[in-house]
Amino acid sequence: MQTMTVSKYLILRLKEIGIDDLFSVPGDFNLVFLDRVQDSGLINLIGDCNELNASYAADGYARVKGVGAIITTFGVGELSAVNGIAGSYSEMVPVVKITGTPNTKSQASGALLHHTLGNGDFRAFQKMFSHITVTNTTLLPHNAAAEIDRVLTECVQKVRPVYISLPTDVVDAEITVDMKPLNLALPANPEKTEAACVREIVNAVAKAKQPIIVADACAIRHHCEKELLELIEKTGLPYYTTPMGKAVIGEDHPQFRGIYVGSLSSPRVKEEVEGADLILSVGGLKSDFNTGSFSYRMDAEKTVEIHSDYTDVFYGTYKAVGMKYLLPKLAAAIPKREVQSINLSVELPKIDMKAMVPQAWFWNRMGKFFKPNDIVLAETGTSVFGCLNSHMPEGATFISQILWGSIGYTVGGCLGAAVAGQERRVILFVGDGSFQLTCQEVSVMIRLGLRPIIFLLNNNGYTIERLIHGVKRTYNDIDNWDFSKTLDYFGGAAGQDKIGFQGRANTAGEFEQVLKKVESHADKINFVEVMMDWLDAPENLVKQAEASAALNRS
Amino acid sequence: MQTMTVSKYLILRLKEIGIDDLFSVPGDFNLVFLDRVQDSGLINLIGDCNELNASYAADGYARVKGVGAIITTFGVGELSAVNGIAGSYSEMVPVVKITGTPNTKSQASGALLHHTLGNGDFRAFQKMFSHITVTNTTLLPHNAAAEIDRVLTECVQKVRPVYISLPTDVVDAEITVDMKPLNLALPANPEKTEAACVREIVNAVAKAKQPIIVADACAIRHHCEKELLELIEKTGLPYYTTPMGKAVIGEDHPQFRGIYVGSLSSPRVKEEVEGADLILSVGGLKSDFNTGSFSYRMDAEKTVEIHSDYTDVFYGTYKAVGMKYLLPKLAAAIPKREVQSINLSVELPKIDMKAMVPQAWFWNRMGKFFKPNDIVLAETGTSVFGCLNSHMPEGATFISQILWGSIGYTVGGCLGAAVAGQERRVILFVGDGSFQLTCQEVSVMIRLGLRPIIFLLNNNGYTIERLIHGVKRTYNDIDNWDFSKTLDYFGGAAGQDKIGFQGRANTAGEFEQVLKKVESHADKINFVEVMMDWLDAPENLVKQAEASAALNRS
Repeated sequence: MQTMTVSKYLILRLKEIGIDDLFSVPGDFNLVFLDRVQDSGLINLIGDCNELNASYAADGYARVKGVGAIITTFGVGELSAVNGIAGSYSEMVPVVKITGTPNTKSQASGALLHHTLGNGDFRAFQKMFSHITVTNTTLLPHNAAAEIDRVLTECVQKVRPVYISLPTDVVDAEITVDMKPLNLALPANPEKTEAACVREIVNAVAKAKQPIIVADACAIRHHCEKELLELIEKTGLPYYTTPMGKAVIGEDHPQFRGIYVGSLSSPRVKEEVEGADLILSVGGLKSDFNTGSFSYRMDAEKTVEIHSDYTDVFYGTYKAVGMKYLLPKLAAAIPKREVQSINLSVELPKIDMKAMVPQAWFWNRMGKFFKPNDIVLAETGTSVFGCLNSHMPEGATFISQILWGSIGYTVGGCLGAAVAGQERRVILFVGDGSFQLTCQEVSVMIRLGLRPIIFLLNNNGYTIERLIHGVKRTYNDIDNWDFSKTLDYFGGAAGQDKIGFQGRANTAGEFEQVLKKVESHADKINFVEVMMDWLDAPENLVKQAEASAALNRS
Repeated sequence: MQTMTVSKYLILRLKEIGIDDLFSVPGDFNLVFLDRVQDSGLINLIGDCNELNASYAADGYARVKGVGAIITTFGVGELSAVNGIAGSYSEMVPVVKITGTPNTKSQASGALLHHTLGNGDFRAFQKMFSHITVTNTTLLPHNAAAEIDRVLTECVQKVRPVYISLPTDVVDAEITVDMKPLNLALPANPEKTEAACVREIVNAVAKAKQPIIVADACAIRHHCEKELLELIEKTGLPYYTTPMGKAVIGEDHPQFRGIYVGSLSSPRVKEEVEGADLILSVGGLKSDFNTGSFSYRMDAEKTVEIHSDYTDVFYGTYKAVGMKYLLPKLAAAIPKREVQSINLSVELPKIDMKAMVPQAWFWNRMGKFFKPNDIVLAETGTSVFGCLNSHMPEGATFISQILWGSIGYTVGGCLGAAVAGQERRVILFVGDGSFQLTCQEVSVMIRLGLRPIIFLLNNNGYTIERLIHGVKRTYNDIDNWDFSKTLDYFGGAAGQDKIGFQGRANTAGEFEQVLKKVESHADKINFVEVMMDWLDAPENLVKQAEASAALNRS
């Protein structure tokens, strides 16, 4: 046992779970803790332009590094981060949300402080966060050590956000603590239940003529990429991913066969998946945009659903048998079949290089631009639907919000991903409509000397919405900023030496030239405005938009 | 009785309470309603860059026009507006928050739709809003008319935000309605209680040697400016305001004596207010920044507290006796005293016109720039503390968030105020730190051809925070954007003909030149970057910062 301050203990535990960087906006109720962070030498403090962007950054960071964290001030600060934290909850991303709150005396007396609702209620904001976090706590000297351990462990194990309230007068309070390492490992599966589950799955695979694997979101969120790869390679089974499972393993893997999205799949993929007589579904998440508006055909009688905390074999459920420990046992027990690989390489269509860049060409072209270990972010809208068609090489990370779908997310997310993966190349695709929401975070990327390549697809408005409803409605128009000066504006004089290429590509030919310039400025931030036709869209987006419009009308 | 759609009824009732403009961000769950608004010809739909800015705009609009409204989509949209709506709640501003939600069938079945938490809970967001609104509702065909009437009436009467959930399949549902006008008038005060209250106040005034009036926030929020003016003029009493009561009546009124902020007041004002033997306090709101960190000296034994829904005379309470109807009765019953006016005009200090603009000169200078009926917005931080020292002429509206204090508010607020007061001049003071949070909304001002004058005070960081804590900490630094190109960047090519003057004033001399240019471009938007020393601050801010730092430590 030893004595230290609450802030010191919190910083040590954050570091232990993997937080090397803390996204923040300063406010008078968190300033002293920010000092402690900076003076610790353990965690790098990053100032964001606003709290929403900071929450997006923490999410993007967590998707690359395993866990993220953000600190804001009370009320005015934290409430601007609500959307980002809700997105982390929805999409299952572990983010620690810390709020610097007024001192405990003011809270107990209901003082009429600034940043309050004026009604003496200091609990309202924490209650609001309780809907979008798996747990929350208020740190006090008597409980701080136990509570910090509890909420950080839940954050990591449940891969969802948690909320910590840190009053100003608790920051430097001295507490007695035990620094034994946190136990972050998941509890073991129940032994006999798991054994029975393995036997039934092995039998099912043995009987099946065309068994396949479909890997989905939770395989990524629960960090089971290695276990999944082992299962795939030891069994020799062909595998598919969903949109949210995209790039769980590099798409140049010889057993990879494509992306299954129900009726929005390519005809070959749809036929293969729906024709399989056994599906091992790993980490399934059946949301509308992940299933072609619920057009999935994976009947229970031929599907094994392996989740993070239970497994369904056909109509039966094996409680508490989770994928992390189950997958290696299946990999060991299922005999290997002969690998049947097919050629998925795509020829770029011939296009007029003097015309605007067409969507049908662009995404395949980008697949050829990507390199192993790239981090690729695709914004909700044209970008994410298009990017599902881009080939993701080995080690690539694909980041998007297919469930939560908050436009503007990827700009903050790009900052977080670039901080987390400083040795990796980071590529962002964002539309002109979405960029508007969170544009200012580009200035933080410049300040930190990060090197993302930002492709702003300028199609003159909210194209995804035009396709769903109101094609020519003015509410789907947006203002045409001087986008190609974005780095100049947000970088200012001090940022000039950190800027690589910035400019516009009006045609496919210009775009090819720009790609070369971007590659020759790989040590700096690059910003490319790509002009596209206002109604040009990837085919899968057109179909999804029709389905969504029909659902809204129904 | 007549038949119409839910959307038509909602639009008619919004129009009836004073909504001529609706701030919005489109999303697939609100698009059809947006069509109905545009096609109604009754309400002008304004597209914002993001939902936080839209909520700030609705708040700024409401402060000028009496009530404001915003529509977003479900989840991702509404959660980005939480901070703005919470601010409206805290500061008592009536804003109608409408959310376009998924169709009722999807909600009932807990469908795994995009923009949801993925757990089938479609009520979570409405519950979150219940903490920061006075009431909320989900519109369904059977209740829509009654519920619309109920929540809009509460919004207006309680001058606080309300929340309306509008499912996609309810928008065009036909309902039978009665279009008799809403009764928005406040209930009358209880007759005998009010009469007794008036008698006691009249007696107290008669006995007092130095009675005064102190007008505070709620006199403005509850729209009692005219009643207050009548009381002041019919009684002849000297009056003071608080920071949140600033400009409730033009400060050139002969009975105005200054701003009372407890120990942060000027010595004369402090002596006069604390030396008075009777204080009629109208609409008091005793928050920290409104009272010089609770250094008010208004003892109950010499104070009459007139609130919106009760009145305290010394130690006794008259329940349900509210200011709206009480003030005219007091005005009629209290005999007039001789008006004692004093000269409050301020000489501008002599300064070096070749040096940077000093805070101690700037705010008095701006007071001489203001004209009757100007709308002046001052951002939390240096701007709001400084602007308390600026003279506000007759008819001026002063907008700030002294209680909620969310930085970035005034940029969205300026948009809303400019839309609401299109015939008035709108002037915004915002710091470089605060501008970062919400900068993009400038593009909407340009698109709409609005004509605000924006003064960006560039003092290289969060000066208010430096004064509270961490004077040289890097977290209080911000990136120095190319601020003087703001209108060019956000206006793009299409915006060029809507831009008046934009540029930087490095010295006081340059600033004087710039003011002339701004006045000669009054028909367009103007943007002035004013360079200021990084630690120069108004004296009242320096004192408040010391008090806040002490409270955080206590």
